[in-house]
Amino acid sequence: MTQLHMQLPGKDHSYEIRIERGLLSRCGELIKEACPGRRRAAIITDSNVAPLYADQVETSLQQAGFQVKTVVFPAGEASKNLSTLESLYDGLLSPVPFSLTRGDLVITLGGGVTGDMGGFAAGSLLRGVPFIQIPTTLLAQVDSSVGGKVAIDLKQGKNLAGMFYQPSLVIIDPNTLDTLPDRVFLDGLGEVIKYGLIWTPELLELLEQHPDRQDMAPYMERILLLSCDCKRQVVEQDEHDTGLRQILNFGHTLGHAYEKLGHYETYMHGEAVCCGMVSILKIGEQQGITPPGTADRLLRLLAALGLPGKAEKVPEKELLATLSFDKKGSGETITPVFCDRVGSVVLHKMPKAQFAEWVRQLEGQA
Amino acid sequence: MTQLHMQLPGKDHSYEIRIERGLLSRCGELIKEACPGRRRAAIITDSNVAPLYADQVETSLQQAGFQVKTVVFPAGEASKNLSTLESLYDGLLSPVPFSLTRGDLVITLGGGVTGDMGGFAAGSLLRGVPFIQIPTTLLAQVDSSVGGKVAIDLKQGKNLAGMFYQPSLVIIDPNTLDTLPDRVFLDGLGEVIKYGLIWTPELLELLEQHPDRQDMAPYMERILLLSCDCKRQVVEQDEHDTGLRQILNFGHTLGHAYEKLGHYETYMHGEAVCCGMVSILKIGEQQGITPPGTADRLLRLLAALGLPGKAEKVPEKELLATLSFDKKGSGETITPVFCDRVGSVVLHKMPKAQFAEWVRQLEGQA
Repeated sequence: MTQLHMQLPGKDHSYEIRIERGLLSRCGELIKEACPGRRRAAIITDSNVAPLYADQVETSLQQAGFQVKTVVFPAGEASKNLSTLESLYDGLLSPVPFSLTRGDLVITLGGGVTGDMGGFAAGSLLRGVPFIQIPTTLLAQVDSSVGGKVAIDLKQGKNLAGMFYQPSLVIIDPNTLDTLPDRVFLDGLGEVIKYGLIWTPELLELLEQHPDRQDMAPYMERILLLSCDCKRQVVEQDEHDTGLRQILNFGHTLGHAYEKLGHYETYMHGEAVCCGMVSILKIGEQQGITPPGTADRLLRLLAALGLPGKAEKVPEKELLATLSFDKKGSGETITPVFCDRVGSVVLHKMPKAQFAEWVRQLEGQA
Repeated sequence: MTQLHMQLPGKDHSYEIRIERGLLSRCGELIKEACPGRRRAAIITDSNVAPLYADQVETSLQQAGFQVKTVVFPAGEASKNLSTLESLYDGLLSPVPFSLTRGDLVITLGGGVTGDMGGFAAGSLLRGVPFIQIPTTLLAQVDSSVGGKVAIDLKQGKNLAGMFYQPSLVIIDPNTLDTLPDRVFLDGLGEVIKYGLIWTPELLELLEQHPDRQDMAPYMERILLLSCDCKRQVVEQDEHDTGLRQILNFGHTLGHAYEKLGHYETYMHGEAVCCGMVSILKIGEQQGITPPGTADRLLRLLAALGLPGKAEKVPEKELLATLSFDKKGSGETITPVFCDRVGSVVLHKMPKAQFAEWVRQLEGQA
């Protein structure tokens, strides 16, 4: 089994990230080992994932001696709000078969919405019940399940309410990727490509050599390992996102704008990030920060994979509104992330107006 | 100026608690000093406190160079819910006059509901905006503003959703107590008495010597200091409530049941805690844990102050339901706090059923 160890400062803050085909059917034992003394677990999952994997996880937990209940919410980003959060609290506190206490566990089983919102429910209920992430989408496995960012959306934007709340264990079973539709699988590659551009060139090379989903399969554990290891290294150095962790935002500032412009329907998160990475590479090239040809290299890879590289033009009003709600922003400034060579990035703190001007220059040229 | 220093482990986790008459009119300078580089602040306050103190705080902040906006919610415990939380997020993110960012500040001005819910809004918005507590009730000054517990109520019980999120500064101006109705002032003494029983006998003696509100006034700064200092010492040793901090729950397990039984209308929090302390002292005496006469000493003080000492009998179903939602509970066990002499407590972990039986014995006898 491939295993990464997240070592964070503070008590109870370290945890394992385990990656192996078939782990889902053994999750009960792994959880028991990671959380000794706990005997009851509530699974939070959505209406897509429940019929696929809930039985398997419940059975494994019961075999390991856990009393289990499962709380299901309607699948989709539209569910990631205060109203669904309240329904999760209700489900967790419902006395049948047991009302969750701090001595129990929450297990989030599903994609990013499940991990983010379920993690926020776990982190805020009773001021914190320990939780385990079992991500089942590629995006969740390489990104949202690792690092302790949990959140819900507000009507003003994505992930605007949340907290830092670390899981006690992350269980990644690459077999769960087999049930993903192509578009959802590809979507997760957006973040993998990001790690390749900002930290681990090998990831980019692996995808360039095996741009087909079937050809990629034998390398999947390696791709998951390198991706999680990049995130682990960055998070260990900056758990609370006050410095280095901002590099993970590469491609996201404009990516969020594209997502929002499409009302979170036109583009999936990873697709929007791909477009955002192309834009920020082009802006970087125009401004002399990024080596010429980097954007073209990315565009070739995206085309080979079947991912978009160019989003619709963002109206200026929408762009400014998005920038003003960017969590990374601080008053009048913003700190976009630029790639200065493949595998390396730099942060450029600048006035929001200047960044908006750079985006206008890019779109004028396009 | 009296000043306590809360020293917690971890980065950015230490802060000052400042206590002095007249601080409200100087809060801008204090905040500027505690949070260098920040220039915008959003005040969260309720409809009772806004007309009394918002102007003064706004003016002081503006004089210190801050841009200010104020978000007001309807006063009362009934507001402390997810729906009001959403309205606070809306107010904080509203672009007029500015949409709050991580580089700004939240200031909670008011009683416990304001500090708890405003602190939760600050702690969860954008995964955490720094915040300052300016408590204006005695209960908030001696208890809820210090220690970083923030929360909202759920329909299943009080403070069931929340987090640990420490303020950057606590500003306590005893002058704000002058506008409190007698009942609200007395309510805050419940927690002062608790500190006297569990940690600082001098507090009990001060109140026994000066049980009248007017006579007490010259000792108010001392009472606030000793109370906050008790809480500070306990929180420093156990920020996340996994050990020593449980002693602050003295009188609260039954207190919460009394509050809930009265639908949070019959008893205010401190009143319910007074009744809960009398009950747990009597149970402790019956079980040979608490020295005989301790409950009577407390009852005499409560009578002199004009605080209740005996709540209505709690129906068994209600009691069990409350125990099962007690955040301190862990599955089938509960850890009530008993006083083994004035100024000292012990924790007794026991099955919930046994504790319920002890309560029944008390009520059978009463």
